[in-house]
Amino acid sequence: MPHKNPLIPRLAVIGMGLIGSSIARAAKLKGVAGNISVHDANAAVRARVSELNIADEVHERAVEAVQNADLVILCVPVGVMPSVAQSIAASLKVGAILSDVGSVKTTIQRDIAPLLRPDVHFIPAHPVAGTEYSGPDAGFATLFENRWCIITPTDISDVAAVSLLQKFWEGLGSLVEIMSAEHHDLVLAITSHVPHLIAYNIVGTAADLEAVTQSEVIKFSAGGFRDFTRIASSDPTMWRDVFLNNKEAVLEVLGRFTEDLSALQRMIRWGDGDGLFELFTRTREIRRGIVALGQEKN
Amino acid sequence: MPHKNPLIPRLAVIGMGLIGSSIARAAKLKGVAGNISVHDANAAVRARVSELNIADEVHERAVEAVQNADLVILCVPVGVMPSVAQSIAASLKVGAILSDVGSVKTTIQRDIAPLLRPDVHFIPAHPVAGTEYSGPDAGFATLFENRWCIITPTDISDVAAVSLLQKFWEGLGSLVEIMSAEHHDLVLAITSHVPHLIAYNIVGTAADLEAVTQSEVIKFSAGGFRDFTRIASSDPTMWRDVFLNNKEAVLEVLGRFTEDLSALQRMIRWGDGDGLFELFTRTREIRRGIVALGQEKN
Repeated sequence: MPHKNPLIPRLAVIGMGLIGSSIARAAKLKGVAGNISVHDANAAVRARVSELNIADEVHERAVEAVQNADLVILCVPVGVMPSVAQSIAASLKVGAILSDVGSVKTTIQRDIAPLLRPDVHFIPAHPVAGTEYSGPDAGFATLFENRWCIITPTDISDVAAVSLLQKFWEGLGSLVEIMSAEHHDLVLAITSHVPHLIAYNIVGTAADLEAVTQSEVIKFSAGGFRDFTRIASSDPTMWRDVFLNNKEAVLEVLGRFTEDLSALQRMIRWGDGDGLFELFTRTREIRRGIVALGQEKN
Repeated sequence: MPHKNPLIPRLAVIGMGLIGSSIARAAKLKGVAGNISVHDANAAVRARVSELNIADEVHERAVEAVQNADLVILCVPVGVMPSVAQSIAASLKVGAILSDVGSVKTTIQRDIAPLLRPDVHFIPAHPVAGTEYSGPDAGFATLFENRWCIITPTDISDVAAVSLLQKFWEGLGSLVEIMSAEHHDLVLAITSHVPHLIAYNIVGTAADLEAVTQSEVIKFSAGGFRDFTRIASSDPTMWRDVFLNNKEAVLEVLGRFTEDLSALQRMIRWGDGDGLFELFTRTREIRRGIVALGQEKN
């Protein structure tokens, strides 16, 4: 049953993977969008989305999906975001808001803004939520509840449009924070990108060790390794694009990580038990903060 | 209600933290031990264990707890294991099995074997199971179910005694694998010790970054960082001792990890998207193996 006077009369979602399909589900369930029109480049995904009945319209072409939409959200990998934006730019209605969910914001802003007409509001955003699964079946309506969505307006973003986008994400259950694209990319480098990188790396190291078999790695993974494999099973295309597009911040944080790891390595080599104990105690504090803020579960 | 003819007529558990208290709970529930006699060096822990009613006898002194025990399991941090073993050595009954649950096996074997009489069977073991919580309240009877326990007999270990210890762990729900202490320490370095080390390290790096506040790290932790903080909130004493006692294997695996990370860093710097994609795809395989083997949940 459609809600009366929805916040967004017509919503368009381009890309119906984990995030896009969750937005469609949540927007429908919470009644924040009237009509939900979607597109995915993959015919099998479009067919599945139709079966799942999570959108009002499923279009073969992105330009059709965005017709008359008040809010268009790009939910495609960061690497193809600019070309998708270019393909729909001329079809966006006057006054429409174009947003995205990319995990990197500086390059998105730099590459997409010049493609748009001045009568379209471009406001990048990033819901910090997800799982290690991909595709339209992996999405669910509560994915964004009590999770932060970061909005990174440009210098020329219209205040009313930013406010509307904020209300939209709050309507899906998110908490919203506004910051610059550059700061976003640094914050996410430490809270998401470098953690994923070192998870991918340790799983790769384990796979290549000659002295330990893959079967042993799998059997005894409950000792801690298992959690890294979960993170390292996230979508390869998405993550390739994240690292190619947030190169500077990732390399900066990775430099710090490597310095700290060298110091830790030296503590082990020299048998500095007090130094190890001090670090292992200090890291418990941050965990307490996360649990206290209710950010501990998916 | 006590089971008839339990596998272990008298079980003694020294150290009633997460693992020790879980052994007591599981042994009672599954009926694999007749009488369960326990000790903890901490008076508050002993009082709590009495309240929880998870042991038949709670002793103030370890030597009292091990009197007449058929199987004695040391569940104390690796660093104090030898001194605890020394303190009870003379009180062990003839033919008793002395075992432990330490995450490191080579130094345990080297340091404890010489302290024991030849009429005691010393058989080190390591249940690869746990959570990030500590103390007697954190334990639970199903902790070991469908988890591997690695037994590392010495050259002179009695075959019948090893077989009895294996049956004991299988009785608690574990799967058992037998290997050398040296191989155990290398396998665990990659599946547990180095993953913990890099989790502690990334959480420490995050805490020290000036450009990102601790509040931001906590808020946006759902992007991947959160899982590392869980691992990095494990017991500091236990982990200090692990790194001090498995120095060689940890440094060896860490060396490989660092080499691989440098290669990955170079891929990012040079924009090698194909190389990144290849690694990120390959790491999904190991995850599939873990899920297929039912090792994905605590």
